[in-house]
Amino acid sequence: MKHIDIKEVLTNKELIGQQVTVCGWVRTSRNSKNVAFVELNDGTSLKNIQIVIDKADDPDYKDIPRVGCSLKVTGALVEGRNATEINVTPADITLLGDCPQDYPLQKKGHTLEFLRTMPHLRGRTNTFNAVMRIRSVLAQAIHQYYQERNFVYVNTPLITGSDCEGAGEMFRVTTIGYSTEYKTEDDYDAADFFGRRAGLSVSGQLEGEMAATAMGKIYTFGPSFRAENSNTPKHLAEFWHVEPEIAFAELEDVIEVAEDMVKHVIGTVLEKCPDEIAFFDAHFEKGLKARLEELISHEFGRVTYTEAIELLKKSGEKFVYPVDWGCDLQTEHERYLSEKVFKKAVFVTDYPKDIKSFYMKQNPDGKTVAAVDLLVPGVGEIIGGSEREADYDKLIAAMKERNMNLDLYSDYLDLRKFGTVPHGGFGLGFERLIMYVTGVQNIRDVIMFPRTVGSIR
Amino acid sequence: MKHIDIKEVLTNKELIGQQVTVCGWVRTSRNSKNVAFVELNDGTSLKNIQIVIDKADDPDYKDIPRVGCSLKVTGALVEGRNATEINVTPADITLLGDCPQDYPLQKKGHTLEFLRTMPHLRGRTNTFNAVMRIRSVLAQAIHQYYQERNFVYVNTPLITGSDCEGAGEMFRVTTIGYSTEYKTEDDYDAADFFGRRAGLSVSGQLEGEMAATAMGKIYTFGPSFRAENSNTPKHLAEFWHVEPEIAFAELEDVIEVAEDMVKHVIGTVLEKCPDEIAFFDAHFEKGLKARLEELISHEFGRVTYTEAIELLKKSGEKFVYPVDWGCDLQTEHERYLSEKVFKKAVFVTDYPKDIKSFYMKQNPDGKTVAAVDLLVPGVGEIIGGSEREADYDKLIAAMKERNMNLDLYSDYLDLRKFGTVPHGGFGLGFERLIMYVTGVQNIRDVIMFPRTVGSIR
Repeated sequence: MKHIDIKEVLTNKELIGQQVTVCGWVRTSRNSKNVAFVELNDGTSLKNIQIVIDKADDPDYKDIPRVGCSLKVTGALVEGRNATEINVTPADITLLGDCPQDYPLQKKGHTLEFLRTMPHLRGRTNTFNAVMRIRSVLAQAIHQYYQERNFVYVNTPLITGSDCEGAGEMFRVTTIGYSTEYKTEDDYDAADFFGRRAGLSVSGQLEGEMAATAMGKIYTFGPSFRAENSNTPKHLAEFWHVEPEIAFAELEDVIEVAEDMVKHVIGTVLEKCPDEIAFFDAHFEKGLKARLEELISHEFGRVTYTEAIELLKKSGEKFVYPVDWGCDLQTEHERYLSEKVFKKAVFVTDYPKDIKSFYMKQNPDGKTVAAVDLLVPGVGEIIGGSEREADYDKLIAAMKERNMNLDLYSDYLDLRKFGTVPHGGFGLGFERLIMYVTGVQNIRDVIMFPRTVGSIR
Repeated sequence: MKHIDIKEVLTNKELIGQQVTVCGWVRTSRNSKNVAFVELNDGTSLKNIQIVIDKADDPDYKDIPRVGCSLKVTGALVEGRNATEINVTPADITLLGDCPQDYPLQKKGHTLEFLRTMPHLRGRTNTFNAVMRIRSVLAQAIHQYYQERNFVYVNTPLITGSDCEGAGEMFRVTTIGYSTEYKTEDDYDAADFFGRRAGLSVSGQLEGEMAATAMGKIYTFGPSFRAENSNTPKHLAEFWHVEPEIAFAELEDVIEVAEDMVKHVIGTVLEKCPDEIAFFDAHFEKGLKARLEELISHEFGRVTYTEAIELLKKSGEKFVYPVDWGCDLQTEHERYLSEKVFKKAVFVTDYPKDIKSFYMKQNPDGKTVAAVDLLVPGVGEIIGGSEREADYDKLIAAMKERNMNLDLYSDYLDLRKFGTVPHGGFGLGFERLIMYVTGVQNIRDVIMFPRTVGSIR
């Protein structure tokens, strides 16, 4: 079906005065005595194209297409009083698909909660069109950032036999259904597809380290899974994860890449999605655009965990969770630090080893590790990373302290045997970045088909 | 750790004559009377940098770094007789990580089978370095192709309640382990994480259609899963899948995008990875480069399934699987058509409806559907697509013929109720494309951590 994207029709000035064919869905329509108007949208642009139907030759024309109908329209593209429009007669309009009166997206201004009940249709609203375009542009900006800097894109496995975090919140993957024919768990596992227990990866980091100590600089960008029973506006059971890993790098190098990347991708969205950012600024968060522009034009803050704890204690603020050295920072603490103390993005470094993972490099103080989190106003943590422990003996000791099964990690340990190198990386929760960039408050509204506990529509 | 990528050192002529610091792993080393030589590789380039160690001031220097050791080296970058090299003295070399004598990648020329036993180390060989760099460049070329043409990148869910193909080869996703406490399968499902049965998606197409009928043109690029008991060189249980979906498009439009995209991404690899393509041409498939150049400079062939069956029958060739109208084409048939008959890439269209999926548009002949497969020499099918059935009643009829549970597809059916449009798309198996571009014969060797039946290391 030869036609032109509405985005192209609205932006390519050379088309003015020419005959164009567009397709799209009716967003609104109204009839008047001599003309009828249809706002048409094909999804390629936040803005609609106005179709002006001249009824002079067909004064009885009454079948003005309803909201939700799909049309093909051919006519002259002209500069109207307020916007670009296409002038047609009723004969120039082909109805591709009708739409009944009970189409649920009739009126404007549906709540996000209502739209969550129809994930298959909500992409047709301005809000989701704008979210999904920003998501797409952000994704490509991330790829571009790494590709231009010699990072190799690596696809780490989703189905895994190990558990990166040493925690238990994994989905199990099996081809065996409900069954009582196995006597023990081991029987069950041995009969399964992979001949052993398998689960969905919570992080590609361990395999990312294997790749980085071969290709030097790598990044992953794929789904990760958490079977956490967390029904919050910030948690998904299935989310997209960006995990760069860099060989020959110390914590400072990791922080440098994180800051540079965040600034690059937000700068790209500001440049490529001005309509969408203006939309969110108007409807979701006043001052959004200024906040993003400020973020990318200032150096991010820096504070150690130990200093951060002191700042929080001295703040006089009443927190729900008490603050003491050794505690994990909660969202309320993270937001206080970035919104009230630093008033910008801030890196917190050198966390207590007991609240961080086994693979983080142990600092000389014996108490902290070379970890880093990036906290941003309005969201809290969006990046968590570290320099990795490159010393074989220290790594083994940290794993034994945590009662980990070393046999499951022999490949990972090999990296410290065969030409070990300083290396590090971080994980970025892609949906949290989108929330930060759009001002959308619920993570269910920045991915088309969210997966959360109890919900899989 | 401030240093320069070896790729940069080897290609940026402005660095010649300057002091540079590089890091990397020793690929080979040898000692002679006055000088020692080390070939160093940091993974950013297929080529090594040669380190020339002048022993004049330290004639007793014997600790020439072993293969596999990691080093940091600072010295003058010069144009040597055959290649760019770095001239240093022993004092300019820092050993970052030692490597024992039993390092398994000592010698060159390991078999691919042997390397499959060490997925965590094989990335350090030339072959896997080249495969993984081509994989990364191909991935970015795919993103770039769609982004430049107004396609929105969409992440369809991996955990799903439906089964796109209507077949049963799905992995189940559960948080319930081996257990006999549930009396029935329904009890088990109700107690599970999502409150119902869930599995790993075999295709994002159905959700892709939902996205395309909102955003107009979309593509997915993510993992898909098949729990097939197929231990062949072409099957993975977890593979990466590119699935564009286009609203306001008929079969011809789908074919046009498929041909244009394949040519674009292969052209990009030829331009950006000349060393890697030369490597595969020399070591894996003589004439590879010429074959790829020929592919992108000729129009792809076109044949209907019915014509293809006639060609195969008339061929006089003895096939393992007999050929008759209505049979599915096997790899031997696909390869014969592309290698012997057309001698190039060829689209086969309009397959019998009984061997294709319920969602394909039914042709007026009542026997075939508007399906298309792209066959390429050496591999067979790499793309499968179709125009989708946009007519509500015809779609329902096709689903009923297949005894499908319509309740599971109510969202999908809504797309045909509310402003249905002609639309279509295709799926590209990303690993099969990499096999085609590199000449590598086993799909386990084009992904870092392959997942196949019985194997999950």
